[in-house]
Amino acid sequence: MRAVLLSGGGGGARFARGVAGVLGDDDLTVVGNVGDDVEILGLHVSPDLDSLLYTLGGLIDAERGWGRSEESWNALESAAAWGGEDWFRLGDRDIGLHLVRTALLREGRPLSEAFAYLADRLGVGVRLLPATDDRLRTFLETPEGELDFQTWFVRRRHADRVLGVRFDGAEAARPAPGVLDAVADADTVFLAPSNPFVSIGPILAVPGLREAVAARREHVAAVSPIVAGEAVRGPLAGMLSSLGHEPTAVGVARLYVDVAGTFVLDEGDAALAPEVEALGLRAVVAPVVMIDPEMREDVGRAVLEAVR
Amino acid sequence: MRAVLLSGGGGGARFARGVAGVLGDDDLTVVGNVGDDVEILGLHVSPDLDSLLYTLGGLIDAERGWGRSEESWNALESAAAWGGEDWFRLGDRDIGLHLVRTALLREGRPLSEAFAYLADRLGVGVRLLPATDDRLRTFLETPEGELDFQTWFVRRRHADRVLGVRFDGAEAARPAPGVLDAVADADTVFLAPSNPFVSIGPILAVPGLREAVAARREHVAAVSPIVAGEAVRGPLAGMLSSLGHEPTAVGVARLYVDVAGTFVLDEGDAALAPEVEALGLRAVVAPVVMIDPEMREDVGRAVLEAVR
Repeated sequence: MRAVLLSGGGGGARFARGVAGVLGDDDLTVVGNVGDDVEILGLHVSPDLDSLLYTLGGLIDAERGWGRSEESWNALESAAAWGGEDWFRLGDRDIGLHLVRTALLREGRPLSEAFAYLADRLGVGVRLLPATDDRLRTFLETPEGELDFQTWFVRRRHADRVLGVRFDGAEAARPAPGVLDAVADADTVFLAPSNPFVSIGPILAVPGLREAVAARREHVAAVSPIVAGEAVRGPLAGMLSSLGHEPTAVGVARLYVDVAGTFVLDEGDAALAPEVEALGLRAVVAPVVMIDPEMREDVGRAVLEAVR
Repeated sequence: MRAVLLSGGGGGARFARGVAGVLGDDDLTVVGNVGDDVEILGLHVSPDLDSLLYTLGGLIDAERGWGRSEESWNALESAAAWGGEDWFRLGDRDIGLHLVRTALLREGRPLSEAFAYLADRLGVGVRLLPATDDRLRTFLETPEGELDFQTWFVRRRHADRVLGVRFDGAEAARPAPGVLDAVADADTVFLAPSNPFVSIGPILAVPGLREAVAARREHVAAVSPIVAGEAVRGPLAGMLSSLGHEPTAVGVARLYVDVAGTFVLDEGDAALAPEVEALGLRAVVAPVVMIDPEMREDVGRAVLEAVR
């Protein structure tokens, strides 16, 4: 069975590992969000794809949830002393990756090639594709004006109420090579338990991608990022409300009605299954939270079996 | 008394500190070599000017003789694991500087402005100027073909016999703003005890600079990089021989006949004074080696008094 997973960072990356653990690395293609990519200190940083790479390659700092384990912070501390920006936390080992990737991009190699190279270097068999090689950036409309994603998320700690989301560059973006074929050929396409607005949204905003996923709707399973009524991490609950949606798994399911035929609810939200079904989605209940690394394969297996 | 010092890295930087300790920071302008600047992992590195900055600012690793004290090496180790080059040793704290400087240069700011900013940031009162803001790079002719400076010096550990030296870009280079004025206005212009071919040579190769220094010849004192018959560090003795010069302080003095009126010999080479004078240079004897940081000011004072 071949699967495609559309994914943001953190929760999506952990889910990717669970699915890869069941299917085998070679049968999974992950399409990652680039809307939160950012240039910091002249380095091209791809936070979501890096989290996928680090998680699938076993380098992630599991406790922190981002960046590398056994990290040090001397380069950033030094850069700050020289007047460089340090609000976006880059560890020394992490910077090693960004230096190599940025050099590849400056040579003119597309992001997809850079990630194919990096994944291969790390021995990650999962195919890791950016949604697009073109420039696509997420901006948030807030009462303070429009903010780029990382300014909103990291610098201002997602404290600003989100009134709208815009994907700059989306109109001109093309799916990265291999993305449309992978979606067309997959037995199952998963939408990871990531934020639908700023993780999955920028992927589906690439022209042709939403249509390609919608064309496979009966084989598409969206996994709820809301677990037992709570967003596991981050600003999702607030965004659902401020953008006029119900702040529950049902509110998320409604966002995916046109692209997904199946919606995977956490066991804690099982009572919402009838409401999800009423939207025209098949509701499937599975343990979605993946706090414990030991549980990842079980969860992957449960979800895979549930959607079969 | 105002002084200008033309300088490479290591020995020149230690001499700069000695002179600054006597004159006061505000009365010294250091014109640094950019011929060994190099782009590594996408970072613009200025090894000689950085050594000057680190030495004058008290950040240098005195034992190693280059780079920063209390350094770690995680970013480079990581970059190497991702396939990046690691033959040029960049520590984490050092990389912090390179990130900030490279970002300034990419914004279009000239190297001289970047160094003025960095020196100010560090509280270094000595004026630190690159010889030129334009691209000038040192290449060595060797039996293995022409090698760029850092490939020859670091990567191949200056093992290749040097048959010629070329300064790529020199014809089109202009002195950085302030350099010619500083030379014209100085009471004394020092040529630091640096390598005459690859440290002082690239500075004097900037059109107009050699002429400006030569015009002040009676106020120019070259400090011997050869001490008691030995090059203190590095490949100087071998280069003097392979390039057809006498491998002694006299051989160095001969290279400076047109630009310097005074040549400062180490006490261990005092016997060579008559030979130096026979070249038409005033010979001055002073303790040139500056191994002991405590001695730096004494040395600076001795040289300054000697050339008065």
